[in-house]
Amino acid sequence: MNFTIQNVLLAVEDDYTTQDVQIKDGKIAAISKGLDIIGEAIDGTNKLLLPGFVNAHTHSSEMWQRGIISMYPLELWLAELYDFAPLDTERVYLSALGTAVETLLSGGTTVVDHLVLIPQKEIETIAVAVEAYQKVGIRAFIAPLIQDQSLGAGIPSGESEVTHEDYFRSTQATLEIMEEAIDKFHKPQDGIYVALAPTGIQLCSDALFTGCIELSDKYNLCRHSHLLETKAQEKLAQEKYGCTAVEHLDKIGYLNYRTSLAHCVHLTDNDINILAETQSTVVHNPLSNLRLGSGIAPILKYRQAGVNVSFGCDGASSNDSQDLLEAIKIGSILHNVTDLDYQHWITPQNSIEMASHGGAKGLNLAEEIGSLTLGKKADLVMYDLTSLSLLPRTDPIGLLVLGRPKNVVDSVWVNGKQIVADGQVKNIKVEQLRQELFQHSQWQTKRKSKTVKEFEAHYRKIMGL
Amino acid sequence: MNFTIQNVLLAVEDDYTTQDVQIKDGKIAAISKGLDIIGEAIDGTNKLLLPGFVNAHTHSSEMWQRGIISMYPLELWLAELYDFAPLDTERVYLSALGTAVETLLSGGTTVVDHLVLIPQKEIETIAVAVEAYQKVGIRAFIAPLIQDQSLGAGIPSGESEVTHEDYFRSTQATLEIMEEAIDKFHKPQDGIYVALAPTGIQLCSDALFTGCIELSDKYNLCRHSHLLETKAQEKLAQEKYGCTAVEHLDKIGYLNYRTSLAHCVHLTDNDINILAETQSTVVHNPLSNLRLGSGIAPILKYRQAGVNVSFGCDGASSNDSQDLLEAIKIGSILHNVTDLDYQHWITPQNSIEMASHGGAKGLNLAEEIGSLTLGKKADLVMYDLTSLSLLPRTDPIGLLVLGRPKNVVDSVWVNGKQIVADGQVKNIKVEQLRQELFQHSQWQTKRKSKTVKEFEAHYRKIMGL
Repeated sequence: MNFTIQNVLLAVEDDYTTQDVQIKDGKIAAISKGLDIIGEAIDGTNKLLLPGFVNAHTHSSEMWQRGIISMYPLELWLAELYDFAPLDTERVYLSALGTAVETLLSGGTTVVDHLVLIPQKEIETIAVAVEAYQKVGIRAFIAPLIQDQSLGAGIPSGESEVTHEDYFRSTQATLEIMEEAIDKFHKPQDGIYVALAPTGIQLCSDALFTGCIELSDKYNLCRHSHLLETKAQEKLAQEKYGCTAVEHLDKIGYLNYRTSLAHCVHLTDNDINILAETQSTVVHNPLSNLRLGSGIAPILKYRQAGVNVSFGCDGASSNDSQDLLEAIKIGSILHNVTDLDYQHWITPQNSIEMASHGGAKGLNLAEEIGSLTLGKKADLVMYDLTSLSLLPRTDPIGLLVLGRPKNVVDSVWVNGKQIVADGQVKNIKVEQLRQELFQHSQWQTKRKSKTVKEFEAHYRKIMGL
Repeated sequence: MNFTIQNVLLAVEDDYTTQDVQIKDGKIAAISKGLDIIGEAIDGTNKLLLPGFVNAHTHSSEMWQRGIISMYPLELWLAELYDFAPLDTERVYLSALGTAVETLLSGGTTVVDHLVLIPQKEIETIAVAVEAYQKVGIRAFIAPLIQDQSLGAGIPSGESEVTHEDYFRSTQATLEIMEEAIDKFHKPQDGIYVALAPTGIQLCSDALFTGCIELSDKYNLCRHSHLLETKAQEKLAQEKYGCTAVEHLDKIGYLNYRTSLAHCVHLTDNDINILAETQSTVVHNPLSNLRLGSGIAPILKYRQAGVNVSFGCDGASSNDSQDLLEAIKIGSILHNVTDLDYQHWITPQNSIEMASHGGAKGLNLAEEIGSLTLGKKADLVMYDLTSLSLLPRTDPIGLLVLGRPKNVVDSVWVNGKQIVADGQVKNIKVEQLRQELFQHSQWQTKRKSKTVKEFEAHYRKIMGL
């Protein structure tokens, strides 16, 4: 699949240049002025070409509950989420399509789906998500969300003696499901990757972490977890381990260059050094952290310590969107209130680099994607700079990151295949998806969550509320 | 102009109901099921009707510099802004059109334009902004931005002896311009209001504030200022007055039920009580406060103290958008990180109320607009709930406030006149506006601001950087 984009704006060192870009066999073959046309000629006039971004943390099936979950902190929000989680694979398929479409149309070419599994239908859940992402053509990491402790164990017990019911599936059975999933679905050549994704220290035993470490080493796969999203989790780590969660995960060997960690809101300076030394990646989910009141992740400190940082939307019921440009904007400017010295602030150019190269690095793909570099795979997004929301013309990347771009993605290629053209997703009928999402849902008002009722008094006591 | 919206979803007390709404002579005449059709029948099926929101603080001509100003705190950002401000009324006209269009298409029916005046062309500047807003049909407060001290005076002097050049226009001449503007342009019956808008304590003398108080009392007009946006302004108030800015403004009689104050980031508890007692309104501009690193305004405290709060986009070069729904989302969830107790958090229903009723109250219009109440003027927005970004169907207001709605505004009426239909602005050709904004601008990279160079060393010293 060869093509040549002509006269497109490219970002170079605090400036822009108009060039041609040749793609050959799915890879970037040449970037220069006045190139010969190979394959299809694509007009890049008044358009900006950037490497695709990575939506580095989401939970696709949360789309079914966006806009509805009460204003709760994570621990109670999760209780409501799970009380009303969709339990059919048809819905999982549709929300994976929806997540892919929203990610693509906001600049993403790769999605990391920390996929909630339907009990007893684990492999089927993964299969339909894989099917959806392959159908759309987006590069996708399926990171099945696994745990081996029941939900209540995620709240610190404090002084009280709390016992939790056993999780319904054994650690061993969970690891077997993961190995089956790797065998069936991990196909990097097709743009589908399986990652090991124990949800986090709050609901996972060391046996589960260790099993995941072994599988990830055996198959050279990525690891992905939530980490220290809330103050409650910070307390819980001290209860469980007598040290910080990062110190513990480091001790058991979970952290390395293939490990990406969502949130990272409550870390000590020593924790930050450990992330830097182990080359772990922080996935910043600013909107979710605000919505759930988790806090502001110390992203400027991470950058100063040399920790790789990428951006995620998080699931669509804690955000409640999958607009990656929104996550990038807020995840960049949010930190200006944490440091008076503006020389430390994230510039729009930094943000683009974090979202593309940072995202790729966190998935151990920095050699293959994440920048417009000769020989890299063509995961590219071309933005229409004549869109009303990007006018008047000023600094194109400034407009894209700091503005509120609408309908600006003109074309997307993944692995050199065009999957968005003229702003339209090519491989699925988005109009049909829209109708199906409408038909499978109903407007609702307040719901009553049984589990929130069960947890709330204890949660308030533990948190001193 | 009569019409009847049939079968439209309305929000009522934590629930929704499907009703008809009759508009007669520009006012809400009846809300009920099965109403007779008067005038045009409008199908409200699968649509949500809300009172229009107020974009309660912006500076329209900043649109010419969106996306381009460096990552600076307010004081340096302003220096760069003014070095490159557009000085022709044609640009002012186009950016007022753009501001109106973006506000309308994100749920706003009223805009407060803290309008930067072109020196020596003050009345002409106001005239073209009025012309633009009347052309589009949006309700508009023109709040000409006035000051009587030069820009450098806005930075605390600290221990150093700093003298500033005189402002180019006398206080008296400025007040005369204001009285001329009131006489010429203040026409509430046409939806155009003039407000007195001294920029803030940082650049205004007491004589200017007092002159504005007199004019606002004489003509029963609103007052509008920036207030304590930055830490530098907090220091400056102590230097100038030996008390807080709020205490000083209260002492000189500037604060009352017709006074709205943009930002209010750095207030003491006593300041907050003063705002509550004087019935002043806080205009929250969350995106600008993040972008400029100003801080997080203590909005939950304001609400608890009974201070009226509304939302603004602020000018499009400190945001860098005019998407009111974005400002409402971030301005709501941002505060969850400031208070562990989720029972204090702003719910989506609260946000809608703040943006509509709160906005109206801050403009002394709560009796006329801001809610779906019989007898009030029909400033209404109807949202298309079948838009992909509002699916799957859950809680419509939750989706609107917490999601990232795109292309969701179906219809807008101001004073009972329809100015958006089928998602299209009726009274101007947006496509032509788009072309003009394109033609009047050029992509740019870094610019060098002379004034930033002049101010920066002093600013860094004063702020301890």
